[in-house]
Amino acid sequence: MASVSPMDGGGWYKRLRESLKSNAKSRDSRYFQVATVDERGRPTNRTVVYRGFLPTSDGRVDENVLTFVTDRRSEKVRHLDRAPFAEVAWYFPVTREQYRISGRVQVVTEQTKDAMLEKARQMAWSNMSDPGRQQFLWPTPGEVRGGDDEAQYNTTQMPTKDDPVAPAFCLCCLEVDRVSLLSLRSNERWDFSRGERIDGMECDEEVWQTKRVNP
Amino acid sequence: MASVSPMDGGGWYKRLRESLKSNAKSRDSRYFQVATVDERGRPTNRTVVYRGFLPTSDGRVDENVLTFVTDRRSEKVRHLDRAPFAEVAWYFPVTREQYRISGRVQVVTEQTKDAMLEKARQMAWSNMSDPGRQQFLWPTPGEVRGGDDEAQYNTTQMPTKDDPVAPAFCLCCLEVDRVSLLSLRSNERWDFSRGERIDGMECDEEVWQTKRVNP
Repeated sequence: MASVSPMDGGGWYKRLRESLKSNAKSRDSRYFQVATVDERGRPTNRTVVYRGFLPTSDGRVDENVLTFVTDRRSEKVRHLDRAPFAEVAWYFPVTREQYRISGRVQVVTEQTKDAMLEKARQMAWSNMSDPGRQQFLWPTPGEVRGGDDEAQYNTTQMPTKDDPVAPAFCLCCLEVDRVSLLSLRSNERWDFSRGERIDGMECDEEVWQTKRVNP
Repeated sequence: MASVSPMDGGGWYKRLRESLKSNAKSRDSRYFQVATVDERGRPTNRTVVYRGFLPTSDGRVDENVLTFVTDRRSEKVRHLDRAPFAEVAWYFPVTREQYRISGRVQVVTEQTKDAMLEKARQMAWSNMSDPGRQQFLWPTPGEVRGGDDEAQYNTTQMPTKDDPVAPAFCLCCLEVDRVSLLSLRSNERWDFSRGERIDGMECDEEVWQTKRVNP
C-alpha cells in the first residue's frame, strides 16, 4: 500500500479519509476511543463509533469537526459540561496507523438552538440503525440494573429513522485543533496544529501547521 | 461462545483472562488505549501494548496491577508525574467486549529503588522484541525530526534481551481500583470497584464489589 506523506499536501483530513478507505474491511476501524476528564480531574476513556464529519448547510462537511453520538444521561456529558475537551485515539488495524485527535467538544442536545446543528443531530439520528436508536430509550446508563424500569429493554417499539429524535440523543462535535499521526509500519510521525484563524483568510487549510517529528 | 457472568465469581480479572484467550487470534486485542491528563488539565489518549500483570516475588502476578511500557522522555511520563492517574479503554474485537480499567499509575524508572519493581522492569525489557527495544535508543519522541540525531535511527546495534536496560525504558504499573465491562453482544454491563483494604484480610479478591448496571 502506498504511503502518502501528509507533508505532500492535503494534511491530516485527507490522509484520514485514505485510512478509512484502506481499512474499510475492518469493522473495528470505525471505532475510536475518547478521553475526557471527570469531576475529580481524572482521565476517563471509552470506545465510541465514528459518525462522520459535521455536515454543513452547503451539503459538504466541516473537515475540522469530527462527530460521535452519546446519551445525555451518560457520565461523559457531565464531564464535557465541566471540561469541554477530548482526545480521540483512533487505531487503524489494516494500515497500522494511529491518529490522536484533540480539541473542544460541543454537545448538541434537544436544547441546542442552531439550525445547522439541529439538522446535523436529526441526520445523525436518521443514520443510526434501529437497535442503535433503541438504546436511547433504555434505562439510565450506569445505574444499577433490575429495577422497575427493566421492562424498557423489551420495548416493542423500535424507533425508525422517521420517528422523532429521542430526548436523550446527543451529537458530540469535536472541533479539532491538534492531530498526531503515527505510522507503525514506517515508524514515522507527523504533528498537525491549527493556528489562529486570520480574519479575511478564505482557505482554512492554510492555518494548519504540519511538522514531521520523532516517533 | 459461552458468556460467563462476572457475578458468578472470579471477578473482572478472571473474565479478562478469558477475553484475552478468546481474542488471541486478533493481534489488535493486545493493544489498548491509555488516557492521562496533561499540564492544562486536558485529556490525552494513545494506544499502547499490553505487557501482562505485574510479576511478584513468589513467581505469580499481582492481579490488581496492569502493566505497559513507555519512554521516559514521552509526554505521558510528564503527565503521570503531575497527575498519576489513568483510564484504559480496551476493546476486544472477537468477543465484542470493552473493559474500562482505571487507577493510579506508578512509573518504574532506572531510579526506582524497590527490588520487586526493578526486577519487573528488567523482565519487561527482556520480553520486548529487538526492534521494540531499539526504539528506546532513538531520538526524543515528539521532537522535530531530521536533526543531527537522525543517524540514531540507523544504529546498527539492536539491543538484545541480554543487553542492559535502556535508561529511557520505563514500566508503567496501573494499580486498578475500578473496572467497567461492557458486552456489546449481550448488552450487559458490570461495574467493579475496589473497596478499602481491611487490615488483616488475607484475600484481596474479597474487597472487590461487583454491580450489574444498565449498559
